[in-house]
Amino acid sequence: MSDFSAADHAWMARALQLAERGRWTAEPNPRVGCVLVRDGACIGEAWHVRAGEPHAEVLALRAAGGDTAGATAYVTLEPCSHYGRTPPCADALIEAGIARVVAAATDPNPRVAGRGLDRLRDSGVAVAAGLMAAESERLNAGFFRRMRDGLPYVRAKLAASLDGRTAMASGESRWITSAEARRDVHRWRAASGAIVTGVDTVIADNPALTVRDVSGDFVPPRRVVIDTDLRTPPDAGMLADERGVVLIHGGTMPAREHDRIHAGAELWQVAPGPDGHVDPKGVLEALAAAEVNEVWLEAGSRLTGAWLQAGLIDELIVYLAPHLMGHEGQPLLTLPGLDLMQDRIGLNWMDTRRVGNDLRLTMAMRDEAEDG
Amino acid sequence: MSDFSAADHAWMARALQLAERGRWTAEPNPRVGCVLVRDGACIGEAWHVRAGEPHAEVLALRAAGGDTAGATAYVTLEPCSHYGRTPPCADALIEAGIARVVAAATDPNPRVAGRGLDRLRDSGVAVAAGLMAAESERLNAGFFRRMRDGLPYVRAKLAASLDGRTAMASGESRWITSAEARRDVHRWRAASGAIVTGVDTVIADNPALTVRDVSGDFVPPRRVVIDTDLRTPPDAGMLADERGVVLIHGGTMPAREHDRIHAGAELWQVAPGPDGHVDPKGVLEALAAAEVNEVWLEAGSRLTGAWLQAGLIDELIVYLAPHLMGHEGQPLLTLPGLDLMQDRIGLNWMDTRRVGNDLRLTMAMRDEAEDG
Repeated sequence: MSDFSAADHAWMARALQLAERGRWTAEPNPRVGCVLVRDGACIGEAWHVRAGEPHAEVLALRAAGGDTAGATAYVTLEPCSHYGRTPPCADALIEAGIARVVAAATDPNPRVAGRGLDRLRDSGVAVAAGLMAAESERLNAGFFRRMRDGLPYVRAKLAASLDGRTAMASGESRWITSAEARRDVHRWRAASGAIVTGVDTVIADNPALTVRDVSGDFVPPRRVVIDTDLRTPPDAGMLADERGVVLIHGGTMPAREHDRIHAGAELWQVAPGPDGHVDPKGVLEALAAAEVNEVWLEAGSRLTGAWLQAGLIDELIVYLAPHLMGHEGQPLLTLPGLDLMQDRIGLNWMDTRRVGNDLRLTMAMRDEAEDG
Repeated sequence: MSDFSAADHAWMARALQLAERGRWTAEPNPRVGCVLVRDGACIGEAWHVRAGEPHAEVLALRAAGGDTAGATAYVTLEPCSHYGRTPPCADALIEAGIARVVAAATDPNPRVAGRGLDRLRDSGVAVAAGLMAAESERLNAGFFRRMRDGLPYVRAKLAASLDGRTAMASGESRWITSAEARRDVHRWRAASGAIVTGVDTVIADNPALTVRDVSGDFVPPRRVVIDTDLRTPPDAGMLADERGVVLIHGGTMPAREHDRIHAGAELWQVAPGPDGHVDPKGVLEALAAAEVNEVWLEAGSRLTGAWLQAGLIDELIVYLAPHLMGHEGQPLLTLPGLDLMQDRIGLNWMDTRRVGNDLRLTMAMRDEAEDG
């Protein structure tokens, strides 16, 4: 790490800012930024906008307008070495006469995995990696998780009163949080590859699960219902609009029936787990296979609790409203079997901020190895 | 307000800083600071340390060493005009030749109520009041509440997991929060006039309710148990140490019996309310009559919930631990009868900060007149 100068840090920070601009559009690709620097000045910069379009390195070279010999390239992710939807970026950097490449993270994609850096090194380019790698990985938590573990990164969204209630005793729950918090949820939805909910929520609330009131471009997330026994009503609002819906079922109904009832939906079959519901890990593997990096789980206390106890949730995002809804209201999460203090589930604070008149708490699940 | 200069604001801010130093020791008196200024320079400053000792104005005059003619006095509370434990401060300022007095709040004490300022004005002193009055009142929320309404200011402390649970399903609850949060609670206790709990908490936890691990001087708060039927065990730990305990009962047991069982305790009788428990408003009136400005309520979910629904709690201080304790755990508050969204109880955010590894949320009860 001592190989990196203050200037290296500053340019990589800029590259990370650029990468961040791909938050809404890069999925299923990683968010990557690139800055080309010569004689202490930026001569070109760019970020990867969208799958199928050029990578950040190629766009930065274009922005520099051809005269890039001897420059340093700061890239937030190791340049690719393989032919995918676009030619390898490592080759483009070599051809452009780049003298030094500083990468933040190395590529977790097994098809790339250090080969991009090797290819550069073999061509005489000075190569350094690891500068602000954690920030790059954090920005691409879903991409890294999918490449490394074959699973998406899962954020579970909850909205509750200060006393941890998600609905009143009567079941009434609209709206617990402020309009600003609900808009914030739509921004999270837009940045995700899939919005996942349970069939009970579909039956109770008939949600659209679309992205609304978000300005700017984004890749519309898949809308996914965990629906073991295919109980989604054929007249559910989400089936009516043109954007597709995925119903994940357990295969208990003849395929012909599915098609008849849910003509507008894509049907995925995932084997049920011991509790009779489709196995959540199987669901996530199927989503990763469909190139979903980040899942936004917006479900009820039972489904969210079950996924959490299965260890499949990475992050909780809790909007806490400044109200008390009473002990007879619905609980934040259904978490059976926690009897003693040693059974409680630990979290780590990631971020705390006001959104409208609510408090948004972002928390990571704590590894069992950490102090409970 | 336009009568006040930038310098006036700066000096009053200093006087408020000084007043703050009396947080732990001034009770039952208000926290008051005073700065004497002449030719743009401070010539003496002080704060009221302790009941029975001189007020801030007198100490500031002493600090100035006698030469105070023509100075301006910035005082966070209207100088007193009556003979209490000390002679009137208004007279002292007049005798010292103070030319101008700027007060933040006027005194809510009906024995003073504007008379101090009148007395100064009648003697030819220029008088202005109202500069940063809200800050002075906030610092003395308990004193103002007691003088105006005959009740103390009540802070209820709660400690819960993120899912709003104060104990596990088994009843286990030690410790929900970090050692830093528990130390913070001791600082709040030290700044309060009384720590109040319920007999069920005494029976379940046998708490000492003392102030521990707090450096510096403070007035030890009264320890008060709401104990309608005098069920406090005679061997309760808090009865054993020398600092007094008040047991507030409903008068259902012959007085002779009380004395025999609870020899170490002060016994106060307050009439029961319709629910058979001693009436919480009666308890608070009794505490105010005993010159308690600030109550620190540290009780279970039932007692705290009942006081809250009776409209007697001003502020909630919730330590939120980064854990999930499960839906079978104990609820944050017992609040019966909240069925619909319109029944929920509104709060206003006052302060949010990390204390150790917990989040401390300070919230004021929201007036019904405000947007619910």
